[in-house]
Amino acid sequence: MTSSAPMQLGMVGLGRMGANLVRRLMRDGHRCVVYDVNPAAISELAAEGATGAATLEEFVAKLDGPRAIWLMLPAAIVDSTLDALVPLLSSGDTVIDGGNSYYRDDITRAQKLAESGLHYVDCGTSGGVWGLDRGYCLMIGGETDVVAHLDPIFKTIAPGIGTAEPTPSRPADAGGTAPEGYLHCGPNGAGHFVKMVHNGVEYGMMAAIAEGLSIIKHANVGQPDRDNKEVDAETTPLRDPWAYQYDINVGEVAEVWRRGSVVGSWLVDLIADAFAASPALDQFSGRVSDSGEGRWTVLAAVDEGIPAPVITTALYERFQSRQLGEFTDQICSAMRSEFGGHAEKK
Amino acid sequence: MTSSAPMQLGMVGLGRMGANLVRRLMRDGHRCVVYDVNPAAISELAAEGATGAATLEEFVAKLDGPRAIWLMLPAAIVDSTLDALVPLLSSGDTVIDGGNSYYRDDITRAQKLAESGLHYVDCGTSGGVWGLDRGYCLMIGGETDVVAHLDPIFKTIAPGIGTAEPTPSRPADAGGTAPEGYLHCGPNGAGHFVKMVHNGVEYGMMAAIAEGLSIIKHANVGQPDRDNKEVDAETTPLRDPWAYQYDINVGEVAEVWRRGSVVGSWLVDLIADAFAASPALDQFSGRVSDSGEGRWTVLAAVDEGIPAPVITTALYERFQSRQLGEFTDQICSAMRSEFGGHAEKK
Amino acid sequence: MTSSAPMQLGMVGLGRMGANLVRRLMRDGHRCVVYDVNPAAISELAAEGATGAATLEEFVAKLDGPRAIWLMLPAAIVDSTLDALVPLLSSGDTVIDGGNSYYRDDITRAQKLAESGLHYVDCGTSGGVWGLDRGYCLMIGGETDVVAHLDPIFKTIAPGIGTAEPTPSRPADAGGTAPEGYLHCGPNGAGHFVKMVHNGVEYGMMAAIAEGLSIIKHANVGQPDRDNKEVDAETTPLRDPWAYQYDINVGEVAEVWRRGSVVGSWLVDLIADAFAASPALDQFSGRVSDSGEGRWTVLAAVDEGIPAPVITTALYERFQSRQLGEFTDQICSAMRSEFGGHAEKK
Amino acid sequence: MTSSAPMQLGMVGLGRMGANLVRRLMRDGHRCVVYDVNPAAISELAAEGATGAATLEEFVAKLDGPRAIWLMLPAAIVDSTLDALVPLLSSGDTVIDGGNSYYRDDITRAQKLAESGLHYVDCGTSGGVWGLDRGYCLMIGGETDVVAHLDPIFKTIAPGIGTAEPTPSRPADAGGTAPEGYLHCGPNGAGHFVKMVHNGVEYGMMAAIAEGLSIIKHANVGQPDRDNKEVDAETTPLRDPWAYQYDINVGEVAEVWRRGSVVGSWLVDLIADAFAASPALDQFSGRVSDSGEGRWTVLAAVDEGIPAPVITTALYERFQSRQLGEFTDQICSAMRSEFGGHAEKK
Repeated sequence: MTSSAPMQLGMVGLGRMGANLVRRLMRDGHRCVVYDVNPAAISELAAEGATGAATLEEFVAKLDGPRAIWLMLPAAIVDSTLDALVPLLSSGDTVIDGGNSYYRDDITRAQKLAESGLHYVDCGTSGGVWGLDRGYCLMIGGETDVVAHLDPIFKTIAPGIGTAEPTPSRPADAGGTAPEGYLHCGPNGAGHFVKMVHNGVEYGMMAAIAEGLSIIKHANVGQPDRDNKEVDAETTPLRDPWAYQYDINVGEVAEVWRRGSVVGSWLVDLIADAFAASPALDQFSGRVSDSGEGRWTVLAAVDEGIPAPVITTALYERFQSRQLGEFTDQICSAMRSEFGGHAEKK
Repeated sequence: MTSSAPMQLGMVGLGRMGANLVRRLMRDGHRCVVYDVNPAAISELAAEGATGAATLEEFVAKLDGPRAIWLMLPAAIVDSTLDALVPLLSSGDTVIDGGNSYYRDDITRAQKLAESGLHYVDCGTSGGVWGLDRGYCLMIGGETDVVAHLDPIFKTIAPGIGTAEPTPSRPADAGGTAPEGYLHCGPNGAGHFVKMVHNGVEYGMMAAIAEGLSIIKHANVGQPDRDNKEVDAETTPLRDPWAYQYDINVGEVAEVWRRGSVVGSWLVDLIADAFAASPALDQFSGRVSDSGEGRWTVLAAVDEGIPAPVITTALYERFQSRQLGEFTDQICSAMRSEFGGHAEKK
Repeated sequence: MTSSAPMQLGMVGLGRMGANLVRRLMRDGHRCVVYDVNPAAISELAAEGATGAATLEEFVAKLDGPRAIWLMLPAAIVDSTLDALVPLLSSGDTVIDGGNSYYRDDITRAQKLAESGLHYVDCGTSGGVWGLDRGYCLMIGGETDVVAHLDPIFKTIAPGIGTAEPTPSRPADAGGTAPEGYLHCGPNGAGHFVKMVHNGVEYGMMAAIAEGLSIIKHANVGQPDRDNKEVDAETTPLRDPWAYQYDINVGEVAEVWRRGSVVGSWLVDLIADAFAASPALDQFSGRVSDSGEGRWTVLAAVDEGIPAPVITTALYERFQSRQLGEFTDQICSAMRSEFGGHAEKK
Repeated sequence: MTSSAPMQLGMVGLGRMGANLVRRLMRDGHRCVVYDVNPAAISELAAEGATGAATLEEFVAKLDGPRAIWLMLPAAIVDSTLDALVPLLSSGDTVIDGGNSYYRDDITRAQKLAESGLHYVDCGTSGGVWGLDRGYCLMIGGETDVVAHLDPIFKTIAPGIGTAEPTPSRPADAGGTAPEGYLHCGPNGAGHFVKMVHNGVEYGMMAAIAEGLSIIKHANVGQPDRDNKEVDAETTPLRDPWAYQYDINVGEVAEVWRRGSVVGSWLVDLIADAFAASPALDQFSGRVSDSGEGRWTVLAAVDEGIPAPVITTALYERFQSRQLGEFTDQICSAMRSEFGGHAEKK
């Protein structure tokens, strides 16, 4: 993880992700100018070697031209930040949106910034709270020469080629940056498009793992003393209780799947860790949020006419975890009551 | 609804379905001997013209041979009832299971009864609480001559040909009883197999209607004063609130769909009625039961290797309405917490 | 089906739907001026009593003000038709879009027409090729007084209250037009919104019925002589072949479900007819089109955050019927080949 | 990967999996007696140091008592092999089924073998063709002391603790073998139960990845020269073609996701390799087999009443890839033809 050419980068937004990007960049010799609406976040990084700026004006003034400015902000405030920032910039400067913007906004923004001679790069950033040490997977959209110019920055942020075994069938001379963990995916929006779908895939993988572990957890439903909410006259009894007598430790199952299995994955690593920390997961009520990318992935699938039933089902499973299907369920209960006189079970 | 040949039928099980079957049969001139564990149920029907029997022995004694006995019982007590009943019967008698037995049990039972010279008929009965006046749709499995012998019974119970317009492409001389509303589907188990799948289809249709009405109900999510549980920093904001400003009366939508639309159906009739009786459906919490047939339909689809994603999804939607996916959801929340430091939203 | 106040209506678009609307209106005493790009379509209706117009200009001229003009056109040409038509109209005129426009286009168009003092009504029209006799279910969006003014037109086109039994719980004095088969759903776009979701529901119901009949059709997979494409070393053998020995006539099943069953519906009526006409359905290869509304329904569900897994699954099932998931499947085969050395089965 | 106590193991079934297990065991100092119906497979391993046996009798004779015999066979021939093998064994011997048997068969077999004083261990083995070097993840069911006795065997076959980073929250003194990559899950059947669900999870993860890459592949559907099979009058046109103009290299996307991303997983490693070897994957037609475990996982979910929509959807997606939904689709087309006069598009 050593880049040949140290650069200067300005970072706007010093939340966990932004701050850790700065740290990872400084570790590798890059110089960072940092700004946040929260002065304490600036002081903290200044103490670690960054150049703090108290205002956007000061921030811009401290950056050498042509400037490279990375925004690490909630998607909802990117546009207002750009409104304040753009008038301070000069032709040839580049703004990188490293957050989770909708890729269509990238296309619009890039066109607008181009009118002022500014460049725009969208960069989907995956890695979560572990990225400082593990590196971040970067999915990048923008003009080819602009992205190439920023290569030392991306190379530092990405995990690096040594963090996974080489892909056997990949020719040694295949080139490209993908084995480093960053990829120029195409013109503006392409980076966030790929990151969006990445998150859709993440939803599907998470749901598959979670459903499986849940099926294993409930492998004891045939036990006579099982506290079964569902045993009553209206529910069909389990026909083969003898086949569901297992008390299996799902945390240990997650741990064993980490090595040598086909489902081995970082998500399995993480859930093994969660079970190790909290075997019953009882600090979680099971309300699973979704933060946009999953929804957009489904919209893209439908627009493209490509079936995406697994990803979509995983999204809806999250909606249902938050009781958003309640009216649908009430209607079904009402129909059952109408045709069969079935009262709801409590 | 007039059968040419009045018959005698014994009915065991005088719950709502069993009692109404007896009434419908007596209205059409058939004679009924009735038995139930609840003496009041016997008295009530005796007062309407049925012959009551206080014990199974008396019940069997009052039936002319070869006997025809209809069981209208919860699936869970059919076998124990047969254990008590069969020793009292004579070779050539027929037992009809009109409840919701699993079709595989029909195959087993028929084989067992045959050893005593008894006949067994499985009869899936659809129509719910409305069947007394509307007639019941019957899906029948059993030996051809045995089913044929019972034809007057089935003909009376079924709705009759006049209850729907003729199928235009069906030849006038096509014959068969399907246009009357009853069908001999095949050997033992075939009746309950078709009824089982019927209920699976029912699950899917119900879910489709319910989901659609729910989408219409929530066509107002773009309104600024909408009490939106989901508006906060982590959730992506609605991009086009102007497109979700409608307050649509879903009860009236159900009513209008009853006439002339492609989705016109008895289920739409019923949900229109439910909304007319209770516009907010607030007596229903949305816990939707499933009573076996939907599960068995999925098992059959998987065994056959036939994709049934809609029916299966509808079944799982019912499971989720009863929070049976809670552990799955906790696992997903735990993974989100691990990789992104996301706390659950309350 | 008698309206108290005959009106004049102009119809643009004389395909099957437009022509039959005109016929149904004329039968009830309304006067129609008709236009189409195809002169033969005009002549045919003129011979039946309509007033033909050879050009849009002539069409507009023959209509009394304030004009009421119904467009029955493919969604893709509504805007270009409006571009030609609007300049010919006068303030106070009303244009009704009776086709399958996206409801968001209705909102835009209504705003644009309002600038010229024109009114716009969106009217989702269900009923297909059967509507001439059966009536059409109408879901209407627009200004209240404008929709009210057109009431005699809608009343004639709709099936009428006598075409279904009254909803039992609906108070006799409930009022409203829904029991006639037409409904003013809300402001502009609300009509097509409800029609859009109606079609989404239709997709789900169709899929549920089709999956169920397919499971019944394949209830013979346990037969030893079954031509089973799937029997080979890699596929798990059926564990209970004895339970899948049924040859069930699915056309007769569809027919029997038409009367008294919970799944009774117009769609079941139609598939019974299709089987009566063609027992093997062999003129159909199984490529199921989708025409927009299903996709838009899914987009709305995702935007609203309402789970719609059954409707969405039905949409994807159509995509898959057209092999649009082929690349997805190739990727899965490639992964299987990588980890297990599994060659694809032919 | 060094076991403290070398053991002797007999292996029946020298396909790729069985042969590689023997090699991995011998590398670690264990002695193996090998048998297969194919003499060449025996000779090959004998040349590498194993003791070959030409018949089952010879095989049994060459094993020291109490014997440990591993079966690595297609599930369909396990029972017939046991029928031949069991009479040759002595009380106290143990048979391990390392293949993909249905866990219910394990329960039955264990009971039957116990009658002869024999022990039975079920061992789900994941790792595919890569396991020789990478190790195999083992999910084990059986009596505690019997499984403990075989520990050196399992320890050698499993990947070993060093093949993944430690789980941070797992206490150093947690103990257990899961971090080595093998786990005693519970009594007989528990091993194959966990392996079965593992494969269900695998189906879901594969489908999520494949769907996502397919959505990325088709991010160019808005390009005017795109060879779009779907452009015609009946299909709704893409509303935002400008948003689907990307030509993204999906192979490079898979490669970049291997490092630092949330979806990082062995399956992503494998598909990156597949794309590196064959960028268009054109040797795959997309007929995705399923080999039993996915089906059984769905049956278990339904029996337990646990929603598993993602795993089930992935299974049905495989069915659909093999055109098993064809009749369902024909029925949908037939309904569309009935109500709308829609001919199928070719």
